[in-house]
Amino acid sequence: MGKFRRVPVGIVGASGYGGVQLVRLLMDHPEVELVYLGGESSIGKSFGDLYPHLAHAANLPIEAVEPEIIAHRCEVVFLSLPNGLACQIAPKLLEKGCKVLDLSADYRFRNLTTYTNWYGIERSDRTIAATAVYGLPELYRDRIAEAQLVGCPGSYPTASLLALSPLLKQGLILPETAIIDAKSGTSSSGRQPQTNLLLAEADNSIAAYNIGRHRHTPEIEQICSDLAGHELMIQFTPHLIPMVRGILATVYATMSDPGLVRDDLITIFSAFYRNCPWVRVCGSGVYPQTKWASGSNLCYIGVEVDPRTGRVIVMSAIDNLIKGQAGQAIQCLNLMMGWDETLGLPKLGFYP
Amino acid sequence: MGKFRRVPVGIVGASGYGGVQLVRLLMDHPEVELVYLGGESSIGKSFGDLYPHLAHAANLPIEAVEPEIIAHRCEVVFLSLPNGLACQIAPKLLEKGCKVLDLSADYRFRNLTTYTNWYGIERSDRTIAATAVYGLPELYRDRIAEAQLVGCPGSYPTASLLALSPLLKQGLILPETAIIDAKSGTSSSGRQPQTNLLLAEADNSIAAYNIGRHRHTPEIEQICSDLAGHELMIQFTPHLIPMVRGILATVYATMSDPGLVRDDLITIFSAFYRNCPWVRVCGSGVYPQTKWASGSNLCYIGVEVDPRTGRVIVMSAIDNLIKGQAGQAIQCLNLMMGWDETLGLPKLGFYP
Amino acid sequence: MGKFRRVPVGIVGASGYGGVQLVRLLMDHPEVELVYLGGESSIGKSFGDLYPHLAHAANLPIEAVEPEIIAHRCEVVFLSLPNGLACQIAPKLLEKGCKVLDLSADYRFRNLTTYTNWYGIERSDRTIAATAVYGLPELYRDRIAEAQLVGCPGSYPTASLLALSPLLKQGLILPETAIIDAKSGTSSSGRQPQTNLLLAEADNSIAAYNIGRHRHTPEIEQICSDLAGHELMIQFTPHLIPMVRGILATVYATMSDPGLVRDDLITIFSAFYRNCPWVRVCGSGVYPQTKWASGSNLCYIGVEVDPRTGRVIVMSAIDNLIKGQAGQAIQCLNLMMGWDETLGLPKLGFYP
Amino acid sequence: MGKFRRVPVGIVGASGYGGVQLVRLLMDHPEVELVYLGGESSIGKSFGDLYPHLAHAANLPIEAVEPEIIAHRCEVVFLSLPNGLACQIAPKLLEKGCKVLDLSADYRFRNLTTYTNWYGIERSDRTIAATAVYGLPELYRDRIAEAQLVGCPGSYPTASLLALSPLLKQGLILPETAIIDAKSGTSSSGRQPQTNLLLAEADNSIAAYNIGRHRHTPEIEQICSDLAGHELMIQFTPHLIPMVRGILATVYATMSDPGLVRDDLITIFSAFYRNCPWVRVCGSGVYPQTKWASGSNLCYIGVEVDPRTGRVIVMSAIDNLIKGQAGQAIQCLNLMMGWDETLGLPKLGFYP
Repeated sequence: MGKFRRVPVGIVGASGYGGVQLVRLLMDHPEVELVYLGGESSIGKSFGDLYPHLAHAANLPIEAVEPEIIAHRCEVVFLSLPNGLACQIAPKLLEKGCKVLDLSADYRFRNLTTYTNWYGIERSDRTIAATAVYGLPELYRDRIAEAQLVGCPGSYPTASLLALSPLLKQGLILPETAIIDAKSGTSSSGRQPQTNLLLAEADNSIAAYNIGRHRHTPEIEQICSDLAGHELMIQFTPHLIPMVRGILATVYATMSDPGLVRDDLITIFSAFYRNCPWVRVCGSGVYPQTKWASGSNLCYIGVEVDPRTGRVIVMSAIDNLIKGQAGQAIQCLNLMMGWDETLGLPKLGFYP
Repeated sequence: MGKFRRVPVGIVGASGYGGVQLVRLLMDHPEVELVYLGGESSIGKSFGDLYPHLAHAANLPIEAVEPEIIAHRCEVVFLSLPNGLACQIAPKLLEKGCKVLDLSADYRFRNLTTYTNWYGIERSDRTIAATAVYGLPELYRDRIAEAQLVGCPGSYPTASLLALSPLLKQGLILPETAIIDAKSGTSSSGRQPQTNLLLAEADNSIAAYNIGRHRHTPEIEQICSDLAGHELMIQFTPHLIPMVRGILATVYATMSDPGLVRDDLITIFSAFYRNCPWVRVCGSGVYPQTKWASGSNLCYIGVEVDPRTGRVIVMSAIDNLIKGQAGQAIQCLNLMMGWDETLGLPKLGFYP
Repeated sequence: MGKFRRVPVGIVGASGYGGVQLVRLLMDHPEVELVYLGGESSIGKSFGDLYPHLAHAANLPIEAVEPEIIAHRCEVVFLSLPNGLACQIAPKLLEKGCKVLDLSADYRFRNLTTYTNWYGIERSDRTIAATAVYGLPELYRDRIAEAQLVGCPGSYPTASLLALSPLLKQGLILPETAIIDAKSGTSSSGRQPQTNLLLAEADNSIAAYNIGRHRHTPEIEQICSDLAGHELMIQFTPHLIPMVRGILATVYATMSDPGLVRDDLITIFSAFYRNCPWVRVCGSGVYPQTKWASGSNLCYIGVEVDPRTGRVIVMSAIDNLIKGQAGQAIQCLNLMMGWDETLGLPKLGFYP
Repeated sequence: MGKFRRVPVGIVGASGYGGVQLVRLLMDHPEVELVYLGGESSIGKSFGDLYPHLAHAANLPIEAVEPEIIAHRCEVVFLSLPNGLACQIAPKLLEKGCKVLDLSADYRFRNLTTYTNWYGIERSDRTIAATAVYGLPELYRDRIAEAQLVGCPGSYPTASLLALSPLLKQGLILPETAIIDAKSGTSSSGRQPQTNLLLAEADNSIAAYNIGRHRHTPEIEQICSDLAGHELMIQFTPHLIPMVRGILATVYATMSDPGLVRDDLITIFSAFYRNCPWVRVCGSGVYPQTKWASGSNLCYIGVEVDPRTGRVIVMSAIDNLIKGQAGQAIQCLNLMMGWDETLGLPKLGFYP
């Protein structure tokens, strides 16, 4: 009978968009059972109070966040909390033997000084942080499979790194020329009401924000530096565009070898992602649309070369809430549990 | 030289969407000069702090709301405040000789008991309220021209009443069968951040709200009762739809004379609005789109008859922030000042 | 081994939005295997040519429509074709023993004269049409289970009938007072390019169309007449609103017994749909949003009573492409095959 | 009395979005009278047939395109036609003494070989093309004032060049590092129905297109080369985003002097545009939104420096149909006629 037992899973911080996606996806996952939802601000409510349309399917109570009790009931815990909170809870859960997947920035950085510089939060859990693995399976599949603690990437870094990794890893570009111009739907900014996120303000408009100082910058740079083999700075500019879901990262870089043509690069990208079920490299002349990815855990990558300028332009399209957040965390869970990497994850977007 | 003097005008409550439209339209009005902007919460800021893109054109300071001082500087004052505040300020302005146009609900009701029942606000200014004229020029042009105090209609009542008035006035329908199904862009709900107004929540969704208890119901009923000559109750249902601007009211009623055909009614509507420069009755078989009205002070009306059911269906499309709010107030101002009713108002929408 | 064999299924007319949803949902259905896609205009292409983002998952060729060959390969065939074509193909498929689910209007009408009057298409297949069952499982579950030919409802009738059925069936309203004001996303109008469906035209706008003469009217009336026990005419008005997916039907009717209150009606609706896994009756004071249903096969129903006017107002929200089209067809398939009614269908929307 | 005579103006090609904006703006222009609308495909219709909501205000007939007759009636002619047609009509109009403003690409290029290479259209009117002035007033005000023939810029070049000009003119950047990542609403793609422009396809999605081969590239490069004083190639990538109006160009370049800080550059930009009433340089830390510009002829420019990477990032926001098309053409007209550059043009956007 044991083989049919589902793994008990909990979510701390289930009220935001990351939380609701985790709930939705985990409800459909064949090997897990969602047994705990926690959150300070909503204690006493049920999940159906926060999202009435899910009351029929996922009406768990929102409980207090007591690590001992959580650890007693859950084998795996997802943390979907504001930055600076996961690092207070994760150590206690790890100590009790839980596997932990953190969706905040707390466990994304090898170098906690970088974290403190960019997030303004002091940290004292250096030893534990050092055990965390960066949860981008396309780059760190084997290490994730061994990890007890995974720091899941941000949505912008996911799109950006999947576009840049083959280029950096194989030395195809001059790294310091890399520019990422990213465009995101507003759900990336969360469910807390803010004037600039109102439909009346955000619809029919686009603007950049936090140029050169968005907190996803050091996260992108950390991994790019790894891939390039030396410290890098990357130009990263996020924009909010009038749509709910999706990120498109348009990446520019000067090629080391200006003789490479588009099909060369598509071949290289396709080889790089050959064993990656969640990355689709588009054919020659095809550019990805974010709508293709919406609702799925897929990343679509388009590759173009401008022979006039010697630059490669890579476009990467994801659903910011799935491959950019909840879906990727579950992809990591699948690896940590030794399951198939695609288990329980949507592979066909809900187009249109 | 006096003939070139512009009339000094002030706005109390300039920070919301009603305020910003008033500012925009009054800046372009040939006969007025905007000399005062007031608002408690933004004192010390400039209008350009609230709306940076207008800083070059309309960078007045936001000043304290002191009626004596306002009256000293302004001949005309627009009040664009939450319900229950205008009735505290207007009497003082009137006493000093100002003309006052109130955009809240405070001066829309002849019967203050109705106001108190629906708005939960006690009132003691019965005498002054009795002098207020309901600011729908298509029905009350002459009285507005004589008024010192105008209570400007809500946006839903504007669209609804322009659709219903010819039918009720001429006894063409069974009044108790009238149903108004109205659809509004989210700017009608204002600029205060609320979760349900976020783009991520409101985009790609529609829902009804406040059925049978929306506060515009008694306002619609008051005028309909006037037109019909007896007390009426009207079914009114508002919906929020995923767009910024515009209201479409779809009105249903059973015809008194089931023999009337579409062209009869179009003729009747056209005659009713013959002298109304801001109402356009569409030709036979043409239904109005809200986009046509966006950016203008126009109301487009489409008329249809269903000979199978004996019902008339009237559609009325306006820009909720212009004909439904700021533009209509200026239309009233034009009448109050003896100017041409169209002065300073946009007559061509910004389509697409 | 036979018990693990999947049922071979085909789709004729796979290129539109109905087709792409059928493909997406059937790919995820545990008991079927998609073995055939047909369509005249796209012969020689693959499905991935039409929808590049699905090329990795569903890259079947688009084949010619030869009923003999289709019937040889498929046990079940979905027809997703313009009106007037299914009735030419279905008889041949039925003769060969296929089960047929038609998504067009061809098999929705018991009375083919009505069909011919509203669709302008002559029909000679009266005998076969008489065997068709109307594919609304909430009303005709048992008959669908026995059917070889199902005429799947239109999207507007699905939303409208789920709102009206309990009221009519139980004599709670004066039927002739029923008015349906429906609002749909533009995907209901298909993928053929038309000026009025361009984003630049349809965004930030709303308009009604085809009042009193939309072809879904007689379909709604046919079923309502069945439920009421006598011939009825229903006022039906569709609107296009600026969103991709979703229909909200707002239904008005005068109650037979004006003493009924909201909770009475919610109790009645809940009882009526007790055994319907795809209908959710909202709690007291909760109105459904179409976003709740988007991506799922659910219909959310909200019930309100206006004690002032004696009317009941019912709101019904569906995903027009799922419960309103492809999902409902699969729900019917499940019944026809004796499977669980929920098999292979999404029960959690992709909110936000 | 002659001083009150309005200048008679005609538009050839009035049916598209460029045309409807020209009509709308010229109707409000105090010094011109719109006397002629021409277009082959709509002959015999009236403008109100194409845009019913403007029938009350601008119901001119659409007439045949006969240059002799046009020239007889009009002093000024706007050509809003597909590429390759203006160059067949303009010479005849010029010969008869008309001033001509062409909104297509036909008269944007000094070097017709470039035009032919990128547009695939042979040209034989070299002499006349050589007299055309590029209609970007912020760069070529004096030459426009003298011109009889103006080739109005494309919408992407307008946004891009206003961002780049101060940098190139003053040698502040390494020109070959310049990258333009541009995002446009779908109205830039016109009113002809195409599948990818349908709301159901384009809403909630973003994609790049024509990377390295968009026809606005050589137009941008021509002017940039002028400014830099030597031949340049510029990386230009356009994207379609889900909104109706607006373009944001985000421009990246490495600074020649890495010691420059943000406020230095804002000072330089402000000085550069000091006499430009239609350009607004944002204050320190303020980034422009396209919504600010919507409905106006303004270009909002934001300037940022990333001291980490040594790059300057400039954002430029315009209404693609006004400053990017019809409004700019009228701005040129004002200069050509010796009128104030701001005459008849909207200076306050219709926010929100």
